[in-house]
Amino acid sequence: VRIKLIIAYDGTCYCGWQVQPNGVSIQKIVQGALETVLRHPVALTGSSRTDAGVHAYGQVAHFDTAVLIDPKRLRLSLNALLPPDIRVMDVERVADDFHARYSATSKIYHYHLHCNGPVDPHVRLYRTRLYGFCDRKALCAATGLLIGQHDFRPFANVSGKDPKDPIRTLSRLDVVEERGGVRLEFEGDGFLYKMVRNIVGALMEVATGIRAPESIWQQTRRSTAPAQGLTLIQVNYP
Amino acid sequence: VRIKLIIAYDGTCYCGWQVQPNGVSIQKIVQGALETVLRHPVALTGSSRTDAGVHAYGQVAHFDTAVLIDPKRLRLSLNALLPPDIRVMDVERVADDFHARYSATSKIYHYHLHCNGPVDPHVRLYRTRLYGFCDRKALCAATGLLIGQHDFRPFANVSGKDPKDPIRTLSRLDVVEERGGVRLEFEGDGFLYKMVRNIVGALMEVATGIRAPESIWQQTRRSTAPAQGLTLIQVNYP
Repeated sequence: VRIKLIIAYDGTCYCGWQVQPNGVSIQKIVQGALETVLRHPVALTGSSRTDAGVHAYGQVAHFDTAVLIDPKRLRLSLNALLPPDIRVMDVERVADDFHARYSATSKIYHYHLHCNGPVDPHVRLYRTRLYGFCDRKALCAATGLLIGQHDFRPFANVSGKDPKDPIRTLSRLDVVEERGGVRLEFEGDGFLYKMVRNIVGALMEVATGIRAPESIWQQTRRSTAPAQGLTLIQVNYP
Repeated sequence: VRIKLIIAYDGTCYCGWQVQPNGVSIQKIVQGALETVLRHPVALTGSSRTDAGVHAYGQVAHFDTAVLIDPKRLRLSLNALLPPDIRVMDVERVADDFHARYSATSKIYHYHLHCNGPVDPHVRLYRTRLYGFCDRKALCAATGLLIGQHDFRPFANVSGKDPKDPIRTLSRLDVVEERGGVRLEFEGDGFLYKMVRNIVGALMEVATGIRAPESIWQQTRRSTAPAQGLTLIQVNYP
């Protein structure tokens, strides 16, 4: 049977979601906990390969097992084995054709920019500091130009070859006020490699007046915003 | 001149506010940063001696200096020297008779109890887990018996001798729903040593049905709730 996990983590101490030759990944740790509970090798597929230092509140992953186990009991067993900065928030049995990555219809990411005064120590690991005045009007003018269906390659880091299909639909990019700064809420049907952080990097330049909102698509050099401000909030399925 | 600081900290890594013979205290670290900036010995007086592991969003402290320095510049200099889990949120010049502890008219503490499901990793250092069902009705019945002016010695840890005046007024003890649990909001004119954590310990027993709400004042043995759920939110002055 196929099982779906919803996983939350503080990415500060990890090399990202995906198993890496050097470094501890979230995928590896959750896989290890699953193998301890189920007593067989497990291949865990995540919806999104979050980078080193990126956080998640609603990462989704799936795996197959022949072991019949109550979802709630599995959740409790996993959380007893996992470190407190990784939590399995939900366990659910799904259809055999469910795929964490390919079945996803949309994803929501939040990026927290801290603009005013000192950063509250309690959220210091989840904020990126924006130095200088944050021009909300310019920020919103630029986000308006990004919403919709576009070829997002100007904001993608390409490793070797181009992505097969670089067309994505960014259905929402809201600028929401929060204590000390703003939260950028991204929702789209998919995101290219480092696309969110490269968009945020460009938006940070717009917000501080280094470049005009109208120039947002002119990416001569990519400026990637730090990982720690980014959280994968939710993955949606049909 | 006398300077007032508002200080926020994540207490996880510290032995508490007050300087201790063994262990790193917040007072010592802030004092050290002040001495580096001002180039003279500084005696820093805090409003509240938060215990090891207790957090603060609005700790208040004062000190005297003959150095004339712009408050905003002092704040920036201090934050450049301090570790990111301690932040000076505000610096203000005050009257010479202002005293962080004795001038305080009331204090607000929050205690976070996590009741349902796994703890979100992003707030894991600021929550205490309540095992078992959390009976909100019993909880509110007990808090109602604590509000008002009382001799709070049943909830105080006495070290050697009794406090001179154990009468305190708890003006507010609200049970507020939040994601995954409840937040207990305490407001009072003063708190005896470990009073908040001993009240929370007793309330946790009431919430889980170990004891009846009516028995809240019968403290045969004190059950002190863990430090990590507690945050000093605000100190008020006339």
